[in-house]
Amino acid sequence: MNQESLNCRLLLPRWIATAVPGQALLESHGVFVRDGLICEVAAQDELRRRYPDVERIELADHLLIPGLVNLHTHAAMALLRGVGDDLPLQSWLHERIWPLERELVSETFVYDGSMLAAIEMLQAGITTVNDMYFFPDQGIEAMRAAGMRISAGLIVIDFPSAYANHGEDYLRKGMAIRDRWMNDTAVSFCLAPHAPYTVSDAVLEQVAVLSAELGLPVHMHVHETAREVEESLHLHGLRPLQRIAKFGLLGPDLIAVHGVHFNESDIAMMAGAAAHVAHCPHSNLKLASGFAPIAALLKAGVNVGIGTDGAASNNRLDLLAEAATAARLAKAVAGDASAFAAPQVLHALTLGGATALGLQDRIGSIELGKEADLVAVDLGGLICSPCIDPLSHLIYVCGTEQVSDVWVAGEPVVRMRQPVSPVFNEHRDRLRSRLPLWQNQVVSHLNRLNRQTVV
Amino acid sequence: MNQESLNCRLLLPRWIATAVPGQALLESHGVFVRDGLICEVAAQDELRRRYPDVERIELADHLLIPGLVNLHTHAAMALLRGVGDDLPLQSWLHERIWPLERELVSETFVYDGSMLAAIEMLQAGITTVNDMYFFPDQGIEAMRAAGMRISAGLIVIDFPSAYANHGEDYLRKGMAIRDRWMNDTAVSFCLAPHAPYTVSDAVLEQVAVLSAELGLPVHMHVHETAREVEESLHLHGLRPLQRIAKFGLLGPDLIAVHGVHFNESDIAMMAGAAAHVAHCPHSNLKLASGFAPIAALLKAGVNVGIGTDGAASNNRLDLLAEAATAARLAKAVAGDASAFAAPQVLHALTLGGATALGLQDRIGSIELGKEADLVAVDLGGLICSPCIDPLSHLIYVCGTEQVSDVWVAGEPVVRMRQPVSPVFNEHRDRLRSRLPLWQNQVVSHLNRLNRQTVV
Repeated sequence: MNQESLNCRLLLPRWIATAVPGQALLESHGVFVRDGLICEVAAQDELRRRYPDVERIELADHLLIPGLVNLHTHAAMALLRGVGDDLPLQSWLHERIWPLERELVSETFVYDGSMLAAIEMLQAGITTVNDMYFFPDQGIEAMRAAGMRISAGLIVIDFPSAYANHGEDYLRKGMAIRDRWMNDTAVSFCLAPHAPYTVSDAVLEQVAVLSAELGLPVHMHVHETAREVEESLHLHGLRPLQRIAKFGLLGPDLIAVHGVHFNESDIAMMAGAAAHVAHCPHSNLKLASGFAPIAALLKAGVNVGIGTDGAASNNRLDLLAEAATAARLAKAVAGDASAFAAPQVLHALTLGGATALGLQDRIGSIELGKEADLVAVDLGGLICSPCIDPLSHLIYVCGTEQVSDVWVAGEPVVRMRQPVSPVFNEHRDRLRSRLPLWQNQVVSHLNRLNRQTVV
Repeated sequence: MNQESLNCRLLLPRWIATAVPGQALLESHGVFVRDGLICEVAAQDELRRRYPDVERIELADHLLIPGLVNLHTHAAMALLRGVGDDLPLQSWLHERIWPLERELVSETFVYDGSMLAAIEMLQAGITTVNDMYFFPDQGIEAMRAAGMRISAGLIVIDFPSAYANHGEDYLRKGMAIRDRWMNDTAVSFCLAPHAPYTVSDAVLEQVAVLSAELGLPVHMHVHETAREVEESLHLHGLRPLQRIAKFGLLGPDLIAVHGVHFNESDIAMMAGAAAHVAHCPHSNLKLASGFAPIAALLKAGVNVGIGTDGAASNNRLDLLAEAATAARLAKAVAGDASAFAAPQVLHALTLGGATALGLQDRIGSIELGKEADLVAVDLGGLICSPCIDPLSHLIYVCGTEQVSDVWVAGEPVVRMRQPVSPVFNEHRDRLRSRLPLWQNQVVSHLNRLNRQTVV
């Protein structure tokens, strides 16, 4: 093997779903990867002949897909998994999530929680995460240490936290973090005003200016609950989406998370503005927020990606499971079993998410010149028999347990279901030793909260 | 080890969710199993002391639960997995399922398809299946060969099939099958008139007589679609449930599958009659049938179990995934995030299903004297960290991949995620060699159907 071939590999799966719009499933094709980039997609025979000396990865029963894009999460909240189940939304927020965050959130909390999430997400085939949380610097640190691509949300919210004190403080800290990571091409940024009901007009104005100046997407919870819409109408005389539009934030840079309570006119506004939706069905169902009108959004031409939301409202970060729910749910909501068909769902999981993040030229599909973020899904088990359409099985049958191999920018992160990077394993072991401490802290605060609730 | 101890084992999990109504989670307890029965549930220290010579199964990170009851499936349809995705219900039935069944269904089809389903279900922690399909004799054969408990539906439908010609023929064949399996205590029966819209008044009358005479539950699709209700009103002047009631079939023996289009008065009738619902959320969503009013049914006191439905409309037989969807969906449908809480979902998965089948005295909970159908779920992975409430993780985090060990009537079927019974493995290998033949047949018939559709 010569020097050149060291950074090369040949992936030889049974099928490839490229996620290139309109392109059919490829069979007996392979992908030639060099220096982290997809350099060729061609018939396996031809690739084997042309690159005889390159490492070959045989994936005889596998479907190769682009790395999944988790278009909305609060990664560090993995440490709050399961703390507020079966509670009405207001109790969930006021009696569980917010009090626990006040006690626990710190740089270490965010680093460890994000690392826990990164390990879970990579093993689920998620190679890019669009995150929103306090201390984004530590979130980025953890994701990069685990070998993951991150779009970091520079959070702004109108109340003080351990991270920052007020709108301007949040934004200033965000800008400094952006400067610090300028040279890591696997890190990109969104401005992340938390939600219409937690940010003032003044903050929205500043966010609009920064987004336009720096060309940054805006990642924001929008129309999650009926109450949010009602309160905005009451306070501002506008629906939240109208209020956002007033500040010039409704455009191709907007990633509207949830969009559960979008009416026809909201959908038309979203489509007209070429804005994006991050659909999080598990969270919307579990918190009883409602049903996002996905079929109607797609019909109007709105780009839709899928997010897991945080582990406190899901309670796991399995984007394939999320996609299966999204695919089934959209059908019942639309009253049309042909809605949100498997190819559309694959698009939402990959190129749709990448497009929302402005990364569509670099990731999201298996195409010449794109970065080699790739996932092999094992369709060889009895559970995938018979196999009429591998793409249908990807959406309606497979879960995390079928994800066997994951590469980010050509680098193997998971091979045959085992994490392979020594760095990754080292971080995982360090995390394992720290988890009991977090568990104890969470339990002791919860016990205190329960006592308060009983009193 | 003496002779007596050969049929004994001691299961020592970290937690036990007994599914006994009102009973809290047990910690550091164990289960002593003898001759297939649960003989003692007590503190681990005590059990270790009292039974020093018995095989010990250490389950240090595990939650032990009763074997899951899949309250509705068409097991053999595993061979039709994924044949009709993203199609409207009428095309799904008329252009895919029914034509394929006409071509393919035979004794061998049912045996192989049921075996495929049995392997998938056992590895998912399902120990009892309530099945409804043609050639129930072959369904039972397969389930028993795989080591599973089955409630076999003696199907009746008003059209001829490879199995039987007309209502009376179906019923006569069903009775003969029941006689044949009289001595296998792991086999029980339901009468299974397919649905109100596929069985005549005459058949319903006969079913009612047989159910009363033989004390058999009646397993039937009811109120699956809005169209079913409308057509019944048009044809009979009655809602399907009213029509069933007219024949005396609405009572504690009725297992109404789906119940999607139950209005308030239907719910009151179900509750008044102490009838049961088999809830199949994945199928209801995927076929765009609608949303079953689970919270309202539970509030009215109706017993609810959960079913996967067949793999042609799901597309997998993972009851934990089904339960997670059921738990989340019920909240959004009710607009109440506290609806269908984890303990209620566990009940539906176990004792609720067993009760619907009339087996509540023998299975469905971890209690003295019940048969030892048990499942160990591994909560030791990072994905289950932190772990505040193991029962919450069971419902909102775990899937098939966390099911590590399964026993049916005390016999190990799956150990450390691997099937252990030599018989099971032998059947699986034989099935593997036959699956390519089925795959070819399904594909060739599908190709022909597609050509017809295009013409």
